Amino acid sequence: MVKPLKDIVIIGAGNVATHIANTLKNNAKIIQVYSRHLNNAHQLAQQISSECQYTDNVNDLCVADLYLISIKDDAISEFLKTIPEQLRDSYWAHTSGSVPRDVFNGFNNKNGVIYPLQTFSKEVKVNVEEVAIFVEGNNTDVENQLIRYATLISKSVYKADSQLRQQLHVAAVFANNFSNYMYIIANDILKRNNLPFSVLSPLIKETTRKATSIPPLEAQTGPAVRGDLNVMNKHLSLLNTEESNIYDIVSQSILKRFKK
Amino acid sequence: MVKPLKDIVIIGAGNVATHIANTLKNNAKIIQVYSRHLNNAHQLAQQISSECQYTDNVNDLCVADLYLISIKDDAISEFLKTIPEQLRDSYWAHTSGSVPRDVFNGFNNKNGVIYPLQTFSKEVKVNVEEVAIFVEGNNTDVENQLIRYATLISKSVYKADSQLRQQLHVAAVFANNFSNYMYIIANDILKRNNLPFSVLSPLIKETTRKATSIPPLEAQTGPAVRGDLNVMNKHLSLLNTEESNIYDIVSQSILKRFKK
Repeated sequence: MVKPLKDIVIIGAGNVATHIANTLKNNAKIIQVYSRHLNNAHQLAQQISSECQYTDNVNDLCVADLYLISIKDDAISEFLKTIPEQLRDSYWAHTSGSVPRDVFNGFNNKNGVIYPLQTFSKEVKVNVEEVAIFVEGNNTDVENQLIRYATLISKSVYKADSQLRQQLHVAAVFANNFSNYMYIIANDILKRNNLPFSVLSPLIKETTRKATSIPPLEAQTGPAVRGDLNVMNKHLSLLNTEESNIYDIVSQSILKRFKK
Repeated sequence: MVKPLKDIVIIGAGNVATHIANTLKNNAKIIQVYSRHLNNAHQLAQQISSECQYTDNVNDLCVADLYLISIKDDAISEFLKTIPEQLRDSYWAHTSGSVPRDVFNGFNNKNGVIYPLQTFSKEVKVNVEEVAIFVEGNNTDVENQLIRYATLISKSVYKADSQLRQQLHVAAVFANNFSNYMYIIANDILKRNNLPFSVLSPLIKETTRKATSIPPLEAQTGPAVRGDLNVMNKHLSLLNTEESNIYDIVSQSILKRFKK
């Protein structure tokens, strides 16, 4: 028999917790928010509903069907140790891309991971329903139940064990964190020349449009893929040490990759 | 007196030439396409109009008001030497981000650069009217005339001398070429794990949406900006040498940048 989906407690009030809670509230009952910063817990609870409780004390946690943990990766293990025994019969899941499921070993018997593959900043609204979510449970029954919870958040739910989730996470670091850092460097160069970042907007939009419509290998352009060493050397002379180190290692890798 | 804008000859039939010509044809008369590959010249001419001529022989070039050169950077200088004297009274401009205007020195007295800051692939349609175009002329009169030509291509036309254009070009390499290469690496990681690149689409779209709505410095997320060395080391162990070299140098730079 499939258990009903009932009350949920959100642990954490950061970027991920905020986005998930604000989507989940439409399809489930979030009864409480926990954060070690009471103010943050209060703020998020207010966004959820006027009845949603909040606390910064694990001993005041409500009894719930699912506890969803979105706190710092390296805080999860220590946090679990503080949870009262009587709450451990429920489902517990974290949302981290890099923390293995076995962080729950010895904690309880209904646990897993609900990992949304997305970048969340509090001030930018995200369409969470379209984010790919990867689920793992400590056994098939638990996994199926967590998948049901995940489908309350997004339409795109997949299974992924801890190993696969780590691979997804490192892929996401390249696709999001590192490409955004390339924008930061581009912005630095423009700033030095008194140009606004907005002159690059059409280029950045086109980069994405291409990458999501044709394979990225076919979308690659620029001096390195053409093997244009003259231009590459000229560019290196315009950059500071930090920038030119990155320019060099990425260009060499592109050169090697596209060598005819 | 401002000269009328009349007949234009497009030199080149590659990605940039194709996109510019297909926009320019709506606002100006392109009378001929030159390419050293006659087939390519023919193909592009057909896209432009049924009257548009094509050739692979510089001695058959029509007399025109503007010759717009979109060929490989390192071919421009040699190409100019082959141009018959009687055609040099017209305006000549190239579209390269990295070739200085002085490539025309000694060639004629009405020359410059019309540089579109964009990535062009033949198979992907681009809204060229919104691309930022940077113009330089060998004197103010010429520059003003080239700006008039550029406004036939795009609504966003700016002046930029050769030095500034190079800075723009290297910024564009980071913003487009390198971020796309990050997508290529992400794709490699997914492929190794039998996952389609499409699972990253919402993440990539969000990366762009953020970068074009809040400053990229505020959009940065991920293990390096959090200073999470555990996750970074775990990621390094999942990558091949090439990938981990890039992961390491970019992460170290992010770490340094965001050090609290």
